[in-house]
Amino acid sequence: MNNPAQKQNARTAITPTREQDFPEWYQEVIKAADLAETSPVRGSMTVKPYGAALWENMTAIFDKWLKDYGIQNCMFPVLIPVSFLSKEAEHVEGFAKECAVVTHHRLEKDGKGGLIPAPSAELEEPYVVRPTSETIIGEAMARWIQSYRDLPMKLNQWGSVMRWEMRTRIFLRTSEFFWHEGHCAFETPEEAEADTLHIMGLYKKFFEEYLALTGFHGPKTPEERFPGAINTIAFESMMQDGKALQAATTHDLGQNFSKSIGIKFQGRDGKEGFVHTTSWAYSTRIIGGMIMMHGDDDGMIMPPRVAPVQFIILPVIKDEATGAKLIEFCDGIAANLKKSGFAAKVDSRDIRTPDKMWEAVKKGIPVRIEVGQREMEANSVTFVRRDLGKDSKKTCTVDEFYGLAQGVLDDIHNGLLERNRKFLHDNTVDGNSVADIRNFYASGRIGFVRVPVEVLKDPELEKVKQEFKVTARCMPFEDKGAKVLIAKSY
Amino acid sequence: MNNPAQKQNARTAITPTREQDFPEWYQEVIKAADLAETSPVRGSMTVKPYGAALWENMTAIFDKWLKDYGIQNCMFPVLIPVSFLSKEAEHVEGFAKECAVVTHHRLEKDGKGGLIPAPSAELEEPYVVRPTSETIIGEAMARWIQSYRDLPMKLNQWGSVMRWEMRTRIFLRTSEFFWHEGHCAFETPEEAEADTLHIMGLYKKFFEEYLALTGFHGPKTPEERFPGAINTIAFESMMQDGKALQAATTHDLGQNFSKSIGIKFQGRDGKEGFVHTTSWAYSTRIIGGMIMMHGDDDGMIMPPRVAPVQFIILPVIKDEATGAKLIEFCDGIAANLKKSGFAAKVDSRDIRTPDKMWEAVKKGIPVRIEVGQREMEANSVTFVRRDLGKDSKKTCTVDEFYGLAQGVLDDIHNGLLERNRKFLHDNTVDGNSVADIRNFYASGRIGFVRVPVEVLKDPELEKVKQEFKVTARCMPFEDKGAKVLIAKSY
Repeated sequence: MNNPAQKQNARTAITPTREQDFPEWYQEVIKAADLAETSPVRGSMTVKPYGAALWENMTAIFDKWLKDYGIQNCMFPVLIPVSFLSKEAEHVEGFAKECAVVTHHRLEKDGKGGLIPAPSAELEEPYVVRPTSETIIGEAMARWIQSYRDLPMKLNQWGSVMRWEMRTRIFLRTSEFFWHEGHCAFETPEEAEADTLHIMGLYKKFFEEYLALTGFHGPKTPEERFPGAINTIAFESMMQDGKALQAATTHDLGQNFSKSIGIKFQGRDGKEGFVHTTSWAYSTRIIGGMIMMHGDDDGMIMPPRVAPVQFIILPVIKDEATGAKLIEFCDGIAANLKKSGFAAKVDSRDIRTPDKMWEAVKKGIPVRIEVGQREMEANSVTFVRRDLGKDSKKTCTVDEFYGLAQGVLDDIHNGLLERNRKFLHDNTVDGNSVADIRNFYASGRIGFVRVPVEVLKDPELEKVKQEFKVTARCMPFEDKGAKVLIAKSY
Repeated sequence: MNNPAQKQNARTAITPTREQDFPEWYQEVIKAADLAETSPVRGSMTVKPYGAALWENMTAIFDKWLKDYGIQNCMFPVLIPVSFLSKEAEHVEGFAKECAVVTHHRLEKDGKGGLIPAPSAELEEPYVVRPTSETIIGEAMARWIQSYRDLPMKLNQWGSVMRWEMRTRIFLRTSEFFWHEGHCAFETPEEAEADTLHIMGLYKKFFEEYLALTGFHGPKTPEERFPGAINTIAFESMMQDGKALQAATTHDLGQNFSKSIGIKFQGRDGKEGFVHTTSWAYSTRIIGGMIMMHGDDDGMIMPPRVAPVQFIILPVIKDEATGAKLIEFCDGIAANLKKSGFAAKVDSRDIRTPDKMWEAVKKGIPVRIEVGQREMEANSVTFVRRDLGKDSKKTCTVDEFYGLAQGVLDDIHNGLLERNRKFLHDNTVDGNSVADIRNFYASGRIGFVRVPVEVLKDPELEKVKQEFKVTARCMPFEDKGAKVLIAKSY
């Protein structure tokens, strides 16, 4: 697809290729990169060490930004009383019904070697494993907020949530997924709106500057908003198959939520009012987006600034006599790179070098450094960029490499982002009517169609939406509300 | 109790005092420090921003140490299939029965405005909210480990677990609590044993050097071991009421767990064998220990090295004209302290200074800095140590203070640790028999009784255990297995 380094008919590390079967390629990349796997819990995934390290890097950066903005992290219960969901009718209609429901608080032996929920331990009121924490955080805010002096209240939580899903795909759609959820309360509607814009700005910055992922951002159409929101702003990325992936959203809930939960405050004028709330999130779903945007037929390509390993160093051992010395030499290079703040790792396992090499490729490690006897003697390294493949192979002295390291990572980052930007724009076409949307998708092309918002009022649009399974993704800020993007989506 | 700065009959910020009602004092300290609260979910707590910031500081330090030791973090599902628990009989007998049991995957309207578990959505096999992840991580290890080359496998997870508790106390015993759980697999029994010792060493270092909490550490008696373990090492701290708090444990599970789950590997000799596993944890419980060990009748005393706020700066505003300038001056001090890596905060809220002062006291902020007009003009600060109270008040120039800051925090830390150490040793008495234990507790004294391990064989011991609700806590390493500690405990 959009990777110029990928040659047709070359042997690829991943089977099938993107061209042959994109969804299956996606699953194989995850397996080959050892990021995550399906778990024995229906629809839930296990994020393996490499995937967890990636998520940790992603959370560490963003968490710091949130704190700089004055967000306070909390830890709310994993369960939510069912009655809390009943309070918020729209919430329930939206997505709260497909939940893991806790009905008992004890297991007992069934007499056949198994365990069953103890009938004597049925709960009077069931709980659900949180599908989102809006209601339980709202209940707390209603108690914690008394007056305007307690505002703004800006809370966030890192954790997992659970929505029972029937058709699941690792990272993209799983019953349990990991995320952060921000919930803020403000005195005025202006502050709430500013919050959703500010956080969306942080998302955009984070996606572009760290994940090398770009996209369009802007308000959702009223029909596509979060249940109960007066405005939802979305960041929509384009995957290599032309489908949209909603990478993050921020919601302005106005007073809808505070009125249904009862989050009141005494204003500066002494009068009681309802707060204006917002909520926003990004999740492990974005990892799916990174795979589907950056990956190629040899596997994952990790954006360097969040890569768990930025430099993998392979000692190319020819005979045992010199092996230990070679590993020591490599360890020294890794130690120096680490000292400069890079994530460097020596792969000194007792397995074949080509196996190590292919593992590094499939995991998408930005730079692979190969050190053989000759390199060691010349105090040099040979290195290859993952994004450009073996044609990018270069040799230089170790000291030169230290000087180059940051620049190489930045180049890879910029290259990925630029490639993503070009792909997004090359595959976003302008149209003027429902007919233009129909013609685009009927021709088998992939990507987004950008049309004037007036097209939303055309009754024919519904048919096209159903025929091609497309939806309105967002109204890009860059078009100042005049246009809307139509696309297939994940 | 053990705080020399606390004067009798003085007005205290916390009612009741420790002397009057220790358990009630504990709850009041948590409320006054705004650390956490009981949640609407039965037996579960909500950790509020101040408590969450403390936990984050605690996890950041320890997580780094774990990584330095080669631990890889993972994210396993929050649910566990019930059949997994059935596999491990001892596990279930131990603690897995009192669980939150998920039986349905959908809610539906009950027609009366409420929601009920949908009868059509009953799960074929129920799940439990994880009470610990041993079984699900074990199942993964059984698939991930093929040969000795895959060993050691050292995994860890930060998250929460849930065990249904009837009598709960915030931090000390809640249905849901936050922790990390390490699960490792090794080729040899020696490595597994070394792992439990190494991690216990890290716990001890962490508790003493960061939480200013000391205690005895050593193996549990066989009866007190973790279900299925061949050895459990515990760290037992003493609270101000003389009761023991088990602050952390490491377990050597030998091959018991790997055999029941089936975690096999091909050894260097080509033969198949079972791995040797370990597990270990500390939890938010230790926050309860910090409160009960360091706190006084004015509230919490935060150990400085993990304190969310180390320096709180109060601008003492006399008139509005100079107020803004004073706040600016304080902001400058905070910025400089932050630049040096300290957690400093200016409390510029529009409330009375004494209220701010008492809030800082109750939250246990290590150092309170007061800046009035006079201080500003002299480019100086007045500061008070939380552990020593108002008699420690000093004034110095701002520059002098920057030079003093680290030393003051270290002094507070060392003072807390020393006080804890003295209290522990003053209240640990040596005995030789069951009669000595009985006499100690019958006299109303508080603390630990250390007796020769032979006393464990005395049939009379059981009566004393029941009469005074004491148990064998651990066999301290410092006594080389010859002695055992008897104590009441949390």
